[in-house]
Amino acid sequence: MEESKKKKKEELEWRRKTWKLVSKVRMESPLIQCITNFVSMDLMANTLLSAGASPAMVHSLEEISEFTPRVSALCLNVGTLSSSSLPAMIAAAKLCSQLNIPWVLDPVAVSASSFRFDACVQLVTFKPTVIRGNASEIISLSSSSLQSSAASMGVDSTHGSMDAVEAAKLLAQTSGAIVAVSGATDIVTDGNQVVGAHNGVPLMQKITATGCAVTALIAAFVAVDKSHALDAAVSALAVFGVAGELGMKMAKGPSSLRMHLIDSLYGLDEATLQSHVNITSLC
Amino acid sequence: MEESKKKKKEELEWRRKTWKLVSKVRMESPLIQCITNFVSMDLMANTLLSAGASPAMVHSLEEISEFTPRVSALCLNVGTLSSSSLPAMIAAAKLCSQLNIPWVLDPVAVSASSFRFDACVQLVTFKPTVIRGNASEIISLSSSSLQSSAASMGVDSTHGSMDAVEAAKLLAQTSGAIVAVSGATDIVTDGNQVVGAHNGVPLMQKITATGCAVTALIAAFVAVDKSHALDAAVSALAVFGVAGELGMKMAKGPSSLRMHLIDSLYGLDEATLQSHVNITSLC
Amino acid sequence: MEESKKKKKEELEWRRKTWKLVSKVRMESPLIQCITNFVSMDLMANTLLSAGASPAMVHSLEEISEFTPRVSALCLNVGTLSSSSLPAMIAAAKLCSQLNIPWVLDPVAVSASSFRFDACVQLVTFKPTVIRGNASEIISLSSSSLQSSAASMGVDSTHGSMDAVEAAKLLAQTSGAIVAVSGATDIVTDGNQVVGAHNGVPLMQKITATGCAVTALIAAFVAVDKSHALDAAVSALAVFGVAGELGMKMAKGPSSLRMHLIDSLYGLDEATLQSHVNITSLC
Repeated sequence: MEESKKKKKEELEWRRKTWKLVSKVRMESPLIQCITNFVSMDLMANTLLSAGASPAMVHSLEEISEFTPRVSALCLNVGTLSSSSLPAMIAAAKLCSQLNIPWVLDPVAVSASSFRFDACVQLVTFKPTVIRGNASEIISLSSSSLQSSAASMGVDSTHGSMDAVEAAKLLAQTSGAIVAVSGATDIVTDGNQVVGAHNGVPLMQKITATGCAVTALIAAFVAVDKSHALDAAVSALAVFGVAGELGMKMAKGPSSLRMHLIDSLYGLDEATLQSHVNITSLC
Repeated sequence: MEESKKKKKEELEWRRKTWKLVSKVRMESPLIQCITNFVSMDLMANTLLSAGASPAMVHSLEEISEFTPRVSALCLNVGTLSSSSLPAMIAAAKLCSQLNIPWVLDPVAVSASSFRFDACVQLVTFKPTVIRGNASEIISLSSSSLQSSAASMGVDSTHGSMDAVEAAKLLAQTSGAIVAVSGATDIVTDGNQVVGAHNGVPLMQKITATGCAVTALIAAFVAVDKSHALDAAVSALAVFGVAGELGMKMAKGPSSLRMHLIDSLYGLDEATLQSHVNITSLC
Repeated sequence: MEESKKKKKEELEWRRKTWKLVSKVRMESPLIQCITNFVSMDLMANTLLSAGASPAMVHSLEEISEFTPRVSALCLNVGTLSSSSLPAMIAAAKLCSQLNIPWVLDPVAVSASSFRFDACVQLVTFKPTVIRGNASEIISLSSSSLQSSAASMGVDSTHGSMDAVEAAKLLAQTSGAIVAVSGATDIVTDGNQVVGAHNGVPLMQKITATGCAVTALIAAFVAVDKSHALDAAVSALAVFGVAGELGMKMAKGPSSLRMHLIDSLYGLDEATLQSHVNITSLC
C-alpha cells in the first residue's frame, strides 16, 4: 500500500515536472545550436520550432568561437560525420565544456567505422551533459573498443533498450554524462538512478531522424533547466513520445505520423500531456 | 473620395500583376539555381516545383562557370555558410552580375559571426537584384559594422518588419538592390518607394526554411520579369503568403501547414489569388 | 489468341515477382548505403524505411573501407556532387565492384557541367548494377561526349522516356549495367530485352527527389535479388509507381502526395499491389 502510494506520488511529480519544462521552453525560447547530419536537419529544426525553441544550424568552424558562447545549448550529432565537420564539433564541445553551456551528444551509428568511433570517444572527453543513442549505440560507446560491438553497424538498433541498462550506467559513470537509451521504453540514467519513459509508438522508428530530433529536444529541455539534466532528458523523451502517441491517432503510415507528431508537439496542452506522460523509476 | 478611388485602382493593378507573374512562372518554368543551406533544400526545391519553376541545387565551385550562365536566376542563401561553400557563391554572384542574370541574396542570421557578416557584405558588392531577410537581418546588414547589431544572433527576428523600413531603404540605396523585409507585413523597397504585402499567417514562422523558400520564389518571379524586380518581389511574397492563408484553413499545426501551403501554391487559381492578394503602397 | 494468353501469363508472373521482392525487402531489411545529394536525403531515407530496408547515409571517405564491405547494396547519386564528395563515391563504387556488392548509379543532371559528366563517366567504369535516370540524363550519358546533349542542363527531363530506348540499350551494352529510364512509362533494359512499368502519376514529377528515392528503392530490391537486377529494377519502379497511384487518391497537391505515397508504400498489401502493377515487355 505504502509502495503504491509512493509510486503514485512519484508519477504525479513527473507529470508536473514535464509540463513545467514544456512551458519553460515555450516561454524562454532557448537558442539551440545544432551541428548535425544532413538527413535530420529539417526534422530537427521543425521539432525545436514546434516545441518553442529557436534552432540554429550553425556548423562552420569559422563561426564557433563567436556564436557558440551565446547559445543556450548545443546538440552534436555524428550521423554524417566527415573530416571537415569534426573539427567544428570538437571546437564547439570544448567551448561548451569550458563555459558550462549544456551540450548533448548523439553518437549515431558509432560502430560504423573506427573514424566515427574514435570521434565519439574524443567528443565524450569534452563532458557532454547528456548522451542519447539507441541500445546498440550506447552498448558500443560504453565498451572500451570498437571491436566488441562490430555486429551492429547501421543506424538501426539490434538490441532492445533494456539490454543496455548496464552499459548505460557504466557510460554515465565513466563519462559523467546523463545517458539516455531510446527504445520501446526509453531509459535514462546518471550512473546510479535509472528512470524509464514509457511513451511513444513503434512506427516512429520507421521515420528517419526521429532519434536525432528527440536528442535536439533534450538539448532544449536541458537548456532551460541545466542543473537537472536527468529530469530534462527524461521529460523530453516522454514529451516526444506523447506527441507520437497523439499523432498516431491520426496517422495512416510513417509519413503522416511524422506530420501529426510535429503538429501534436506544437499543440500539446497541460491536461493532454499529463494524462499521457508515463515515467517511472526503474531502479 | 479621390484618394480611395486611387487606392482601389492600385490594388486591382497589383492583383492583375501578381496573377500575371504566377502564370508566367508556370508557363516559362525558369531554371533557378540555388546555392543554399542544408536545412532548406527540400522545402525550397518543392516550393519552386509547386510554383512551376525548375530548381537546380548545383553548388559546386567546379560547375559554376559552365552552369550558372544558362540559368534564369540564382538564389544565394548563407544559412549554413562555410569556407568551402563561400567561393562557389562568390563565383556565381560575380557571373550573374557580369551576365545580367538576376540573383537574390538571403542573408540568414547575418549577425551570427563576423565570418558570415563579412561574406554577406562581400556578396552585396556583386549587385544582387533583390535582398530578402527578416527585420533583424536587414537592420544588421544595413548598418556598416557587425557590432551595431550583435543583439540578434539567431535566425529568428527580434524586430518587427516596420522597424526595418528605414534600414531597408538605406540598404537599397547603398546596394542598388530591391530590399524585402519579411514580417507580419512584408515590406519591399527600392530605396524610395515602399510597398507592403499583407498576406501570410503567423504560424509560418514555426516552420523552418519558409523564409528561404520565399526567397527562392522571389528568384523565380524575378526570372520571368527582370526589369520589374520590385513588382516581382512583392508579388512573390504576397503569393507565398496567400498560399499560407489557404493552407491555414486546413492546417492543425506547423507541419500540416507546411504541406497544405505547398499544395495551395500548386493549385492556386486566378479567382482565389485575386480575392486574397493584399498589396498596398506604404509610402 | 496465343499471343494474348502469353501476355496474360507474363503479366501474372510480374505481379508475383514484384510482391515476392516487396516481401523479401521487408523480411531481410537490407542495409543500403546512400552517398547522395543533400536535397534528397530525407525522402530517400524515408522511402527505404517505408519499404522495410535500413538506410545508412554514410558518405565520408574515411568510413568507406570499413563500412561499405558490409552493406547489402550501395546507391550513388551525383545531384549535389562536389570535389569533396566524389572521392568517397569512387572509393565506394570500386569496393562494391571488387566485392560483388550490387550498386546503383543516379546520374542526376549529368549534362550540367563537364565536371559532373566526367564524374559519371568515371563511375560507370566501376560497373554499376543498375543506372537509373530520366530520358535526358540517359541520352546524355549514353552519348560519348558532353556536347551532344547540352540542350538539357537541369534536373528535369526534356525528353519522354520512349525517346531514350535506343540510348538506354546502347548504354546497357557498353556499360554492362541494367539501364532504367523514368518517365510516363518507366523502361528498363539489359541492352537486349526492354521492359516497361506503366505505373505512377504525373504529379510525382512535382515533388523533389522522387527520382532519387526510386533509385534508392531499386538498390534495396537489387540487394535482395542481385542475380536478377532487371527484374528488381522494374519491380521497384512499378512498386513506387503504385504507391504514387494509391497516394494520388488522397492527395490534394504535390506535398500531400509525397506524404500519402510514403504511407502507401509502407502499407502496401499483396492484393492491392497485384491489382495495380502494370509491367509488360516492350521488345
